[in-house]
Amino acid sequence: MMMQKLRRSGELIRYGSKSLINLRPNKDSLSRSVSGFVNHYETKGKHFESNVGNYNTELHHGCLGRNLGMLQQYKCFGSSSASKIQRNPLFSSLDSKDVSYFKEILGDRNVVEDEERLETANTDWMQKYKGSSKLMLLPKNTEEVSQILQYCDSRRLAVVPQGGNTGLVGGSVPVFDEVIINVGLMNKVLAFDEVSGVLVCEAGCILENLATFLDTKGFIMPLDLGAKGSCHIGGNVSTNAGGLRLIRYGSLHGTVLGLEAVTANGNVLDMLGTLRKDNTGYDLKHLFIGSEGSLGIVTKVSILTQPKLSSVNLAFIACKDYLSCQKLLVEAKRNLGEILSAYEFLDNNSMDLVLNHLDGVRNPVSSTENFYILIETTGSDETNDREKLEAFLLKSLEKGLVSDGVIAQDINQASSFWRIREGITEALQKAGAVYKYDLSLPVEEIYNIVNDLRGRLGDLANVMGYGHLGDGNLHLNISAAEYNDKLLGLIEPYVYEWTSKHRGSISAEHGLGVMKANEIFYSKTPETVAIMASIKKLLDPKGILNPYKVLPHSLFSH
Amino acid sequence: MMMQKLRRSGELIRYGSKSLINLRPNKDSLSRSVSGFVNHYETKGKHFESNVGNYNTELHHGCLGRNLGMLQQYKCFGSSSASKIQRNPLFSSLDSKDVSYFKEILGDRNVVEDEERLETANTDWMQKYKGSSKLMLLPKNTEEVSQILQYCDSRRLAVVPQGGNTGLVGGSVPVFDEVIINVGLMNKVLAFDEVSGVLVCEAGCILENLATFLDTKGFIMPLDLGAKGSCHIGGNVSTNAGGLRLIRYGSLHGTVLGLEAVTANGNVLDMLGTLRKDNTGYDLKHLFIGSEGSLGIVTKVSILTQPKLSSVNLAFIACKDYLSCQKLLVEAKRNLGEILSAYEFLDNNSMDLVLNHLDGVRNPVSSTENFYILIETTGSDETNDREKLEAFLLKSLEKGLVSDGVIAQDINQASSFWRIREGITEALQKAGAVYKYDLSLPVEEIYNIVNDLRGRLGDLANVMGYGHLGDGNLHLNISAAEYNDKLLGLIEPYVYEWTSKHRGSISAEHGLGVMKANEIFYSKTPETVAIMASIKKLLDPKGILNPYKVLPHSLFSH
Repeated sequence: MMMQKLRRSGELIRYGSKSLINLRPNKDSLSRSVSGFVNHYETKGKHFESNVGNYNTELHHGCLGRNLGMLQQYKCFGSSSASKIQRNPLFSSLDSKDVSYFKEILGDRNVVEDEERLETANTDWMQKYKGSSKLMLLPKNTEEVSQILQYCDSRRLAVVPQGGNTGLVGGSVPVFDEVIINVGLMNKVLAFDEVSGVLVCEAGCILENLATFLDTKGFIMPLDLGAKGSCHIGGNVSTNAGGLRLIRYGSLHGTVLGLEAVTANGNVLDMLGTLRKDNTGYDLKHLFIGSEGSLGIVTKVSILTQPKLSSVNLAFIACKDYLSCQKLLVEAKRNLGEILSAYEFLDNNSMDLVLNHLDGVRNPVSSTENFYILIETTGSDETNDREKLEAFLLKSLEKGLVSDGVIAQDINQASSFWRIREGITEALQKAGAVYKYDLSLPVEEIYNIVNDLRGRLGDLANVMGYGHLGDGNLHLNISAAEYNDKLLGLIEPYVYEWTSKHRGSISAEHGLGVMKANEIFYSKTPETVAIMASIKKLLDPKGILNPYKVLPHSLFSH
Repeated sequence: MMMQKLRRSGELIRYGSKSLINLRPNKDSLSRSVSGFVNHYETKGKHFESNVGNYNTELHHGCLGRNLGMLQQYKCFGSSSASKIQRNPLFSSLDSKDVSYFKEILGDRNVVEDEERLETANTDWMQKYKGSSKLMLLPKNTEEVSQILQYCDSRRLAVVPQGGNTGLVGGSVPVFDEVIINVGLMNKVLAFDEVSGVLVCEAGCILENLATFLDTKGFIMPLDLGAKGSCHIGGNVSTNAGGLRLIRYGSLHGTVLGLEAVTANGNVLDMLGTLRKDNTGYDLKHLFIGSEGSLGIVTKVSILTQPKLSSVNLAFIACKDYLSCQKLLVEAKRNLGEILSAYEFLDNNSMDLVLNHLDGVRNPVSSTENFYILIETTGSDETNDREKLEAFLLKSLEKGLVSDGVIAQDINQASSFWRIREGITEALQKAGAVYKYDLSLPVEEIYNIVNDLRGRLGDLANVMGYGHLGDGNLHLNISAAEYNDKLLGLIEPYVYEWTSKHRGSISAEHGLGVMKANEIFYSKTPETVAIMASIKKLLDPKGILNPYKVLPHSLFSH
């Protein structure tokens, strides 16, 4: 099959300056066809305004978070660890004077008390976590964020920073009654330097809008992810978002050159350098990258973007076994070298799920196999890059590493390949209850946990493995008809223990949020967690910033 | 000229699997011909043992640091800012019981009291900074480092962590009588994963030894610098070393995946992950990257290495003006894209200096120009890469961006091109007194400071500009017959103020050390420096780790 297809290379379309990546379906468009999706996700598109506008859609309370009152337990199915949190009684409760003060500094329009809008902002996009905040604030600039925090700190009012609210671990919604500070109105590009490729923008810029802006300048963002149509760059930075381009351009710790952040007491930290190199003292910005808003609210970002290259190619490949996927990765790194830009995988269970639940999707290779790989190349030489990919695949076919495969022949085909990989999340939502785990593991171990868990759960659930294989990042998903404690008990802490035993990470890119705050010790030592807690206390002595998240609750018991 | 040379492309030698980079002269070999160089630098080669062996070379006291006794002022010419430091009287002084204790845990052999060896360890390689430590400790493993620090902390004995002692800001030698902890015996490679390319090793591994080890596996280190024959990976990480490959592989904040570090109280922090992605809590390792040993001693490093690609090409180019250098950079990023691996520049003053002071060096292009650029490409396709570079240079010639240029036709020629760029430091040492500044600036501003300073100093000194233009990193060097306060007064704080005004960094890659600790405010705000000081106090409450360095002395006055 593949031989034939590869030999028809003359038919392959050269994409010219149109990047395939821009044509991938994004989470925003996917969400429109997901039943039961909350409206805030459906309506948020390129413009944040839709999120702060008027909502009138009835929510489908599939939401499993139960908030039984401020002093009661927070209960959330689907994750055992977050299920027993007490509201910190040291936090004040919002009163009318607080609201008046916020209206004074922000104006009435940007102090949201409307129940429907709050319902949306209180609920995460999976409808798994739900808070009971009575107030959302929409600051327009850093100064307003500073004033808000200074006030909240003095009153000891807990807050939750919110961006596009696309997180998967309950990090961006309140647990109890925290005041929501949504930075979506802070959405301006502040500067772009075409010599260095450095972009400076406000935290509320939607990732896709930044990509669109850069496209006009001939540059691309160094990160790309399914949620790009909704997620904010500030949220990306705060959660150290990974995504599809990490294999090529590295993590945000490398590409974010500067930040502005506001700490709990309203202190504005100007770390907004635009330099590639700056060794003057401790590089504090890294504390704010990936700390999930618990140390400060990121208000501005300076990031190194990449020149947009003219040639993008995408192959969809079938492999018989996991060992072949792994060997193929090593070969791809060596042979495709500098043009390799994505190496994603899914297993056959994931493929079946997508084929069964999403309309208009078909398997690009004719035969059913155990594993599928997407290899994307991005380079500056169209003919050479394509020939290189073809030669690599032919060689891999001869070696028996791949059993079938196709190279996208036009943009639509490439888009349909990505639709399979990026549609898994949507298909999982449609299939019923889903337990999601986001693990980093040594590449050679990645599929062992899928097999082990499959053996452990038997007929109780469908276990799927997919993800960013090139980065050693597995998305382990367990799909069942409904959530139940017996199943959860079989999954947790088993998955965490397994990961810990293999020196993996229980959160590769999603963060800990409220879901895994108590599980941090599976991936971090007590000594390092103790230092994290000290730093938290140093920067946020009253603990008002995104409480109950990231760090174990036991460290902050009152 | 260039047209002819470029058209002789058939003669260009394909380097095959031999990387040019391995053939660059390194600082170690250079140092052998530098008059007045201290012996420790000359004798340290691939094996650290030579540093802990027996020294019998008389030192040439060109050293300008003067240590007049523990309670007196530290005086150092060539840098105004470090000249008025008082020894912190809260620190204990070493006594015989301390030495006995150290001998008990390390063995007699690894507790160095020998005067000549201490003289070497007390002196930085430029002979500009000199301490008066009476003791050097050579731990063999993390446990010993921990025991040493636990003891020093309890006794409040100040320490200076030392690696290859190749720093340029006095960071790796004592200021007064700090105990030297040299990690050179901790020089084992612990693991290498050929699937992920992740290398785990001890902090005392010499960078070049790691490169040699990786070469046998078909990988390269993500950093390369002139001092590679002596510098240690632990020192590289602690100073966030930049160097020649940063433009391609990014900073150590992106490529270092994990660390083990020992804090002042002897606490061992295991952050030695080997995963590309790990979002579980605050990423504390970044605090230790670039904090110059002031927060802890790095004992192990986990780093992402890169597959060694088969094709390396190097061009030496002449440009009429700085604007052309800048435009050429933008074009190179866009046209060479994924294969660009170095973009270095030097001005004609630097070229003259090298031609005058180093033997056997000649200008590769026949005409004298104002600026010279080295462009290196690294890729996986020999024919294509070379053709791409040639086409790019021809196009640039037609556009008038370059006035002349050659592509290295064999490894020797490439090596001779690099010799010019990397020989500048050596030539500067030979030329007399030198004031060294390592600035990050927006690319378009880089040469303005050179011109401004040239105007300001007139005939008093020779001002040279060279460096990593692709990263916006200028090495500004002022050469004079001898050090004098009048000249220094004209340079500082002028250079720092100029840099600060243009939102640059007063230390791109060298760090602050003792030279620029008090100048941090030129690049960092009081709010961020205050947080740095709090973190220092948190991790090292008694301030024993590398005192008088990195942070302003005023913050730690007794």
